[in-house]
Amino acid sequence: MSRDSSDFPAVHDLDAAIALAPDGEDAWRGQTHPAYGNMVGPFGGVIAATLLNAVLRHPELLGEPVSQTVHFAAPIADGGFTIRTRVMRTNRTTQHWHVELLQDGEVAAFSTAVTALRRPTWATTDAAFPEVPPAGSIAPAPHIARAAWTGRYEMRFVDGAPGAPDSASDSSQSRLWIRDLPERPLDYLSLAALCDAFYPRIFVRRPKWVPIGTVALTTFFHADAAQLAAQGGAPLLGVARAQRFGNGFFDQSAEMWSEGGELLATSHQVVYFKE
Amino acid sequence: MSRDSSDFPAVHDLDAAIALAPDGEDAWRGQTHPAYGNMVGPFGGVIAATLLNAVLRHPELLGEPVSQTVHFAAPIADGGFTIRTRVMRTNRTTQHWHVELLQDGEVAAFSTAVTALRRPTWATTDAAFPEVPPAGSIAPAPHIARAAWTGRYEMRFVDGAPGAPDSASDSSQSRLWIRDLPERPLDYLSLAALCDAFYPRIFVRRPKWVPIGTVALTTFFHADAAQLAAQGGAPLLGVARAQRFGNGFFDQSAEMWSEGGELLATSHQVVYFKE
Repeated sequence: MSRDSSDFPAVHDLDAAIALAPDGEDAWRGQTHPAYGNMVGPFGGVIAATLLNAVLRHPELLGEPVSQTVHFAAPIADGGFTIRTRVMRTNRTTQHWHVELLQDGEVAAFSTAVTALRRPTWATTDAAFPEVPPAGSIAPAPHIARAAWTGRYEMRFVDGAPGAPDSASDSSQSRLWIRDLPERPLDYLSLAALCDAFYPRIFVRRPKWVPIGTVALTTFFHADAAQLAAQGGAPLLGVARAQRFGNGFFDQSAEMWSEGGELLATSHQVVYFKE
Repeated sequence: MSRDSSDFPAVHDLDAAIALAPDGEDAWRGQTHPAYGNMVGPFGGVIAATLLNAVLRHPELLGEPVSQTVHFAAPIADGGFTIRTRVMRTNRTTQHWHVELLQDGEVAAFSTAVTALRRPTWATTDAAFPEVPPAGSIAPAPHIARAAWTGRYEMRFVDGAPGAPDSASDSSQSRLWIRDLPERPLDYLSLAALCDAFYPRIFVRRPKWVPIGTVALTTFFHADAAQLAAQGGAPLLGVARAQRFGNGFFDQSAEMWSEGGELLATSHQVVYFKE
């Protein structure tokens, strides 16, 4: 169900939110966007996409994203920020990156990334594509008014919706069809943000509100740019689950699948929580 | 089966391999150790442990490791190297780090890390502790002579030994009991190295030798220091599996369990392969 990009609005809020203006060599200016606000500060997924955008727009870029790690080092205030990029190493087919986001001269977030020239090789998928009802058969979940960013995603939960009657079960797993609202052709930038759009697993496993915050997030991009472009604005099947909660932190891992069963990305994060 | 550290040799080869000599502010000198050599250059797990050691020895360190991401940016030559540390941000209970390993003035590897003051909270484990035979009932696998580091680990495979008759199955999963050789009391440094001691999944899934190399590795440490110390030199149960192979890269995820069923760490890496 690929579409021509002319089917989509000229400037999507996501593109406005991750936009960067050059500010000298290896430096950019950006600012948070109210459409992707979280309860406090901006949605982390859009910060990840912004940091990746600084890599993808860099004149020395080699290849496509293979991995990205984002550290949410401190609260990000709504408003402007500076981004600085540094090429750590360029090889023949791979390149390593460091990117910082600064506010008031202090690092509030930073990212590392690997980009690479992809080439065809032997390929197979070991993870199992879940058998679930199609997206169209499930009603979208209501947005959470105090977290504006949730209004920018269509989420159709197969199971594991936070606060659902079954959410105090033994499992922290959620499976949902998810896509940008309004629809936007999939690329690495939107995929980077989508990988952080899973609600914190603690709210699925134990439906009690506590302060939480992602501390570090690593995403592995398995799809090449052509595979992503072929998705157009189709919903992706996301699967997320935690492995361990304790001592104020938990981890959660996610898979992002195409409707056709291609594993586009896997993502892993560690999250702070209180109590 | 905790033991007093006096049961162990005074200086373990691992500690010699990750040793750092101060070389001015935020800088250290180290060198590769032949006991942990790989086919070319050093075993990546020991590089991860060395980069973590620079954080743990830093005078401004806050707390214990929660996560570490290592980028293997270029081949590391046997011999000496310089390490530079940078505190990216210090908060009340968490701290973010950037560490570089340089040879000939160029970055060959780098790491980010989160350390934090852990405190008791609600805790549970969602991942399932595998039911497997005890370590003592399984013979250790032979070492691989051309990869010296394999002689520094005792590996007792439950299943998924590379090159085993079942290794061309549909699964890239291995389960094995693993520990340092000679025995060494477990700590964050040895655990960081152990998380990279799983053979590349492509050799389990498809028993054909091809050039491979880990590109980036992220480990989440779930255990606190006391939990690790209580392990002494007991074997850990490691579980590793890939999710997706294609376009010259695959990912693999690992779990490290104590004999008693505690999930001590989870780890995720992306690996380059040829063909």
